[in-house]
Amino acid sequence: MPKLNPEELDEIYAFAVDLGKNAGRMLLDAANLRFGNDRPEDQAHVEKDNAVDLVTQTDEDVEAYIKGQISKKYPTHKFIGEESYSKGASRDYLIGDEPTWCVDPLDGTVNYIHLFPMFCVSIGFIVNNKATIGVIHAPFLNQLFSACAGRGAWLNETQPLPLIRDPIPPMPEKAPSGCVFSCEWGKDRRDQPDSNLHRKVESFVNMAAEIGGRSGRGGMVHGIRSLGSATLDLAYTAMGSFDIWWEGGCWEWDVAAGIAILQEAGGLITTANPPKDHLTASIEDVKLGSRLYLAIRPAGLSSTESGRQGQERTVREVWRRVRNLDYSRPGV
Amino acid sequence: MPKLNPEELDEIYAFAVDLGKNAGRMLLDAANLRFGNDRPEDQAHVEKDNAVDLVTQTDEDVEAYIKGQISKKYPTHKFIGEESYSKGASRDYLIGDEPTWCVDPLDGTVNYIHLFPMFCVSIGFIVNNKATIGVIHAPFLNQLFSACAGRGAWLNETQPLPLIRDPIPPMPEKAPSGCVFSCEWGKDRRDQPDSNLHRKVESFVNMAAEIGGRSGRGGMVHGIRSLGSATLDLAYTAMGSFDIWWEGGCWEWDVAAGIAILQEAGGLITTANPPKDHLTASIEDVKLGSRLYLAIRPAGLSSTESGRQGQERTVREVWRRVRNLDYSRPGV
Repeated sequence: MPKLNPEELDEIYAFAVDLGKNAGRMLLDAANLRFGNDRPEDQAHVEKDNAVDLVTQTDEDVEAYIKGQISKKYPTHKFIGEESYSKGASRDYLIGDEPTWCVDPLDGTVNYIHLFPMFCVSIGFIVNNKATIGVIHAPFLNQLFSACAGRGAWLNETQPLPLIRDPIPPMPEKAPSGCVFSCEWGKDRRDQPDSNLHRKVESFVNMAAEIGGRSGRGGMVHGIRSLGSATLDLAYTAMGSFDIWWEGGCWEWDVAAGIAILQEAGGLITTANPPKDHLTASIEDVKLGSRLYLAIRPAGLSSTESGRQGQERTVREVWRRVRNLDYSRPGV
Repeated sequence: MPKLNPEELDEIYAFAVDLGKNAGRMLLDAANLRFGNDRPEDQAHVEKDNAVDLVTQTDEDVEAYIKGQISKKYPTHKFIGEESYSKGASRDYLIGDEPTWCVDPLDGTVNYIHLFPMFCVSIGFIVNNKATIGVIHAPFLNQLFSACAGRGAWLNETQPLPLIRDPIPPMPEKAPSGCVFSCEWGKDRRDQPDSNLHRKVESFVNMAAEIGGRSGRGGMVHGIRSLGSATLDLAYTAMGSFDIWWEGGCWEWDVAAGIAILQEAGGLITTANPPKDHLTASIEDVKLGSRLYLAIRPAGLSSTESGRQGQERTVREVWRRVRNLDYSRPGV
């Protein structure tokens, strides 16, 4: 695969930002139609796994729009979209070395159905298996997040991420205490011993409980937040609003754009599931497609450690408090 | 107490909206100073109950501004603000029949410290113990919620609440299934048997789990959201984005404005704690100051029940799944 030169990348980035703006506007226009018109539950929707997972016509229309624009402008690029993938039979990981667009036309579908503002379009561009460009547009919030490798990460194209940056604060000394912890309940709600629901809840409670509680695992985080959008969780971690995001079960279109933005902003992303030697294991960047994610916000240096050291210390403190989650896929 | 006439109320409402706009701007200006300047943890702050509860200088400045404006314009009105109250020794309920302003200069303090956008100023005006005017301004989200008894509830002064309103959707037939459930972890993190933390978590899991799970209590809600701001939880319930909000421990300045907006939009608010005869108990409006709240979004009629009937059915379904919380105060 020939490498993209800087001018080509600049052009693709500008194209992706425009695409995100337009697609976000389509989402908002479709939502506005519902103010005083159709109610969301009346919209055509198809039940996927269960009532928690709805997909609307808008979802498909926006994906078709994005896919059409990309294939017109970059006919040689590969395209993976949530809607088209979900309708296929395979659950294989489809991203290779070639330039690939990885798109969720509507992340936060439940929010969108209920008109809770935390929904967005998410457009990632991946080269050599690295999330290189990310554009996230949450039109009801007027928030556009964007990043391209080597060109910084931005809120609304003007405000560099993370927001607080002169200096960027180090991770709190007693992390996860002092941290805002972002997590999601998800749609796997099986009430069986050791189900993902119960593993998650046990982990959440460990993070929340007072220091000394939970047999020494109490993390006394500063706050726990659940937005219902993996993409926006990542965007707010890149922004520095969330210190820690821990989640399992996402697919690559949920996270590709967010990872590009988080990493360009200086954040770290690794696996949600603690390795056996979690105190000493080297902390590797997560593999896109692994479905298991732990993100730490951009961090500055303190008097005793570098930003990366603070992030890695935080990763180990999270691993000490969370359960392994049971999400897998073929081929990874 | 002489009743306020409609013109007086209109004037007070317009004054409250202006106050909310200005106070929100002050919050955002102080936040902007921190982009690239001070980091939040470096700001002067005082630890209150524990690390989860921080109060910043901005909080006090904004309260002083609001209090000053009110005492200049309406010197006979009573004023209760979070900051001034918290510094007093009494935990009595201070609102009587006289016109009273009940103000939280900064709700979502933890969010504000971390620059997560879910923070706001909350201004309530209470007459004869009824929340009559509410103004909530979340400046980082560009969202201003306002309501005055008899004058409707509004987003950004132009969009009536709830957003979806022609018709307003009925409560889902199998509520809480199909509902977005909003709840908060709060700052009581004691890891003791039967602590509020564990009562809350048990309740959350009941609401989340699959139908048939949890010994028949599984509610399979559509989503669980935690924003870290009671005020915005209420605003989004009034908007219709959240179907159910359940919380204990709030003080009256956390909820006064939100209750005014929710009720004017057509929502219901009662107590979080299930009465013994929860299947048949009459469902009364919550008493401001009770510290225990269960809010249901505005609901339209279905083919089988009125909006109110659907809301009351939902209240009973929530009561069936939640634990009593242990929050009290003197004199209530």
